[in-house]
Amino acid sequence: MSAVIDKPSIDTLRINGDRLYASLMELAKIGATPKGGVCRLTLTDLDKQGRDLVIKWAKEAGLSITIDKIGNGFMRRAGRNNSLPPIVTGSHIDTQPTGGKFDGNYGVLAGIEVVRTLNDNNIETEAPIEVSFWTNEEGSRFVPVMMGSGVFAKAFTLEHAYVAKDTEGKTVADELARIGYIGDQEPGDHPIGAFFETHIEQGPVLEDHNITIGVVQGVLGIRWFDCTVTGMEAHAGPTPMALRKDALQVATHIMQETVASALRHAPHGRGTVGMVHIHPNSRNVIPGEVKFSIDLRNSTDALVDQMADEVKAFAAKLSQQTGMAVKIELVSSYSAIGFHKDCIDAVARATNKLGYSNMPVVSGAGHDAVYMAKLAPAGMIFIPCKDGISHNEIEDATLEHLEAGCNVLLHAMLERAGT
Amino acid sequence: MSAVIDKPSIDTLRINGDRLYASLMELAKIGATPKGGVCRLTLTDLDKQGRDLVIKWAKEAGLSITIDKIGNGFMRRAGRNNSLPPIVTGSHIDTQPTGGKFDGNYGVLAGIEVVRTLNDNNIETEAPIEVSFWTNEEGSRFVPVMMGSGVFAKAFTLEHAYVAKDTEGKTVADELARIGYIGDQEPGDHPIGAFFETHIEQGPVLEDHNITIGVVQGVLGIRWFDCTVTGMEAHAGPTPMALRKDALQVATHIMQETVASALRHAPHGRGTVGMVHIHPNSRNVIPGEVKFSIDLRNSTDALVDQMADEVKAFAAKLSQQTGMAVKIELVSSYSAIGFHKDCIDAVARATNKLGYSNMPVVSGAGHDAVYMAKLAPAGMIFIPCKDGISHNEIEDATLEHLEAGCNVLLHAMLERAGT
Repeated sequence: MSAVIDKPSIDTLRINGDRLYASLMELAKIGATPKGGVCRLTLTDLDKQGRDLVIKWAKEAGLSITIDKIGNGFMRRAGRNNSLPPIVTGSHIDTQPTGGKFDGNYGVLAGIEVVRTLNDNNIETEAPIEVSFWTNEEGSRFVPVMMGSGVFAKAFTLEHAYVAKDTEGKTVADELARIGYIGDQEPGDHPIGAFFETHIEQGPVLEDHNITIGVVQGVLGIRWFDCTVTGMEAHAGPTPMALRKDALQVATHIMQETVASALRHAPHGRGTVGMVHIHPNSRNVIPGEVKFSIDLRNSTDALVDQMADEVKAFAAKLSQQTGMAVKIELVSSYSAIGFHKDCIDAVARATNKLGYSNMPVVSGAGHDAVYMAKLAPAGMIFIPCKDGISHNEIEDATLEHLEAGCNVLLHAMLERAGT
Repeated sequence: MSAVIDKPSIDTLRINGDRLYASLMELAKIGATPKGGVCRLTLTDLDKQGRDLVIKWAKEAGLSITIDKIGNGFMRRAGRNNSLPPIVTGSHIDTQPTGGKFDGNYGVLAGIEVVRTLNDNNIETEAPIEVSFWTNEEGSRFVPVMMGSGVFAKAFTLEHAYVAKDTEGKTVADELARIGYIGDQEPGDHPIGAFFETHIEQGPVLEDHNITIGVVQGVLGIRWFDCTVTGMEAHAGPTPMALRKDALQVATHIMQETVASALRHAPHGRGTVGMVHIHPNSRNVIPGEVKFSIDLRNSTDALVDQMADEVKAFAAKLSQQTGMAVKIELVSSYSAIGFHKDCIDAVARATNKLGYSNMPVVSGAGHDAVYMAKLAPAGMIFIPCKDGISHNEIEDATLEHLEAGCNVLLHAMLERAGT
């Protein structure tokens, strides 16, 4: 009897967009900036207030709370069969120094809204459902980024994370203890049946295509390099062009090649020079040394490595031609991740069932879901953000899109959890 | 009778290179740096000690001292006809924070050595001879540069110079008074019959050609611009290449055009980008704004203005193609200066008489002689410096070249002063 009655009610189930939006705005008051953004750096008093508020809401929704030793939080709604690993969603609630209201926060509160919706409709799932928040995803106060999920996935050790210091010399361990968020559980000692993360796209693709849902296929592989060109510092006036060793001129060609390599490896190739330091940085002195960052990304490790090889070969040739030393050093490397077919399909099916316009996309940025993908089937749901802008106080997303993404999450999680 | 005896003795007159070098090394002890350079910033206690030592030497050589209200010093050796305007030489004794032993100091002490040589040989000149030192040529503590000679030549007012502040808020007027170098004479109320300045080249041309003396024809005209490219700051990962407005990529093309314009206007065209600031200067953010300096120089104002027009036209076209704003603003402009034919010829004749290898050169940098050229016939004598390096603690020049330049100065001044 119940199967006949329940089936249609689950297919027509929808989250409450207004309630989700109200929660987002309420959480955004903690650390609100005059320009409409949020500054809630990880492990600060404001982060504690944010965590406390989310846990208060979770408890009001009947969830039980577990905090692990790196401060990750798991808020659990029991299922019919609690021996099954939980279907988990979540993201982070720390922000950039001049961050927005949605990055990360949306992924956590969408999970809370899913639970509230299940409660409202008295829906029991087969597997338990959990909403998680992960410590220090942003990495702006302490490195490495994605610290909580990284420790959880054993990408680095708890001890390594604990000794990380902010610019004032305060450690993660001390700050976690100070705000009362060192839990008992060993990070990673927490089963995960599948993981979903909803997130604003942080890029312009969905908006550019006028699409509501991005079905995320994977995350681009990243290679970060520091490039140093060494020329000869000299007075700009008395040094004729033919006798110069202008490090900046050589650097500009490598900066252009960084972009060219991405264009040659479309559609997912990305090449960026974001940071430049020139020495001595004086108006009338020919630069003797230029250091700059190279950020290369693509959808497979083979492609991004090929881009890196091309940039290095270009730089080596230029060095030989000009007699100036060019050093390119790897700073960080993140493998490309393909999300699990079952999770991608669950997101796509939910989106189609709900009738939202959608397209397959890749994530150019890292997310907590990347580390979860090492442990369990994982997937992500993207919604558009205004002008593709994030990590900025003017970051914005519409109620319509926030609601749509949360509905997709609801149905993808229900499919995986079973009803 | 005397004419027959004196003539050959003057032609064979030579300065004492060892004595000149010893004085240079003695003065270089004041503010000596561990790396072998000198830090003797203008109007500091060290500057006072340097001034005091030079004046002590001048008094020992029988010179009478005049200090003007901006602290310029004139050290006079009377001539036979003291109603004639003096033939003046000189330069500055302040240094860069990490400066060398020769920049400026050589020009002052070469003048002292000329006087000592005339004294040793009991040579009387028709016109008086003066050795000058000019306040704050370097401009590293107070702007504008070439302050003492600039006030003297009425390029700007004494009041303008007096209120200039260092980074601690101390003014030129207060610091001049503190070290006891505000004199009575109004700047500019001091006749100059002709002006010669000996200086290290501060560039690599003489060394590259293996030439001892540069007969300076003039000083390049300079145009300083600030260029600002405005794109759109965005996350390096999620933003596909086609949807970017990367301000740095546009900037690199203008940086290259700055150099290209100089190469098109050889042999004296010079184009330098020495200062770059990018915003937000973060490894994984596409630069939203790039500001950089453009320094253009050439031997005539027409040529340097043509270079500027070409760079501006290139930037305007690029702005139109990319849709990114490019603003180019003039910061400073210095006219090209041709030195006086009589002084150039006097230097060339002295050099040839002495048998030194020589070539006509231009000065790419400003010197006190540039302001003197507005008031009287002026000329400069360059000698090589090691690897063309100056404004650096490793700045170096050989005894042989220092001696040669000083001998040229001696004979050029004697020609102008009359014996």
